[in-house]
Amino acid sequence: MKAGVLYSGGKDSTICAVILKNLGYQVELVTINFGYYPSWRAAVESSSKLGFKHRILKGDSGILEDAVQTIINDGFPNNGINKVHKYALELMAKNYSIVSDGTRRDDKVPKLNLDQIRSFEDRNNVEYINIGGMGHKTIKHLSNTLFHVKKELTSMENNSDYEIEIRFLISKLKGEELAFKIFPEHLQSRVIGWRENE
Amino acid sequence: MKAGVLYSGGKDSTICAVILKNLGYQVELVTINFGYYPSWRAAVESSSKLGFKHRILKGDSGILEDAVQTIINDGFPNNGINKVHKYALELMAKNYSIVSDGTRRDDKVPKLNLDQIRSFEDRNNVEYINIGGMGHKTIKHLSNTLFHVKKELTSMENNSDYEIEIRFLISKLKGEELAFKIFPEHLQSRVIGWRENE
Repeated sequence: MKAGVLYSGGKDSTICAVILKNLGYQVELVTINFGYYPSWRAAVESSSKLGFKHRILKGDSGILEDAVQTIINDGFPNNGINKVHKYALELMAKNYSIVSDGTRRDDKVPKLNLDQIRSFEDRNNVEYINIGGMGHKTIKHLSNTLFHVKKELTSMENNSDYEIEIRFLISKLKGEELAFKIFPEHLQSRVIGWRENE
Repeated sequence: MKAGVLYSGGKDSTICAVILKNLGYQVELVTINFGYYPSWRAAVESSSKLGFKHRILKGDSGILEDAVQTIINDGFPNNGINKVHKYALELMAKNYSIVSDGTRRDDKVPKLNLDQIRSFEDRNNVEYINIGGMGHKTIKHLSNTLFHVKKELTSMENNSDYEIEIRFLISKLKGEELAFKIFPEHLQSRVIGWRENE
């Protein structure tokens, strides 16, 4: 049972990967890249430290451009990020019959609702799995127990979220000031190994 | 990290227990009993075959009576079963700081919505975990891979759902005919061991 997990190097997608691996799935961690910026480096590092196979899937640059236009027009990132996420899942479904991501119970964006999940599974004949059974308290608790986590301010180098290439493209089109307004700097957690190996 | 999992012996609650055990939780499977009928036997058998610790928690018989009145008045089981489930979770929260059940993504009843989950966690200072990240296809697939499952018509002896004692009480108060109308006989799956041990 091979499963592809959309992977950023963060706590949520890492816990999802661990759950699937523990259940016996052959897990591949996947970072989508749209060709604008090498956003996969943090994800590759986390995957390697944890011993997971990692793969980069090339996304259509036009999708990122569309999403960035939406975000610039909206003045906030939610709709654009949801567009990118939906595209990423469809791309995953072309490569894996079990498609997974680190969406947890209390996530708002990106997130598929129940009807969108049913449609995604049926249209593509795949199974979709996330960590919708767990809230942020559980993720924090588990992550502190299982992983070595690094907390740091977001930068272009230390995470592999969709945000990285989106931010790059906004900066290029409209300047860094707008990019920072739409994605304010914040503390993020990056998984950099198993706690047991410390 | 001790976690209590509401347990019926079915696929969903068993998969939830396995996920938590694999993550390192010290799992206790729990069946609530209201003192009307020894409904725990199937759950005890499944737990023992799988090597999990099992515990019976005594519920307030008045809660079951209230729920049965609701079900008789409604003519269908959903609201009454939700009442019993909410009570069961509150009882679990008095005994465990991590409370879990086998609710999956596409379940309708019993199920807490997001606001109810947040309230449950905050009021009781617990974490609530279910398998809301998985749909029925994934559960079936995983269950066929991991477990030895027995499919059979529901009876009073072969499952440990709330339904058993509710059915017992409806039969006692209003006769078997109404009990069968409200809970029609159906095929159910019961986990009776690990597949690797076959």
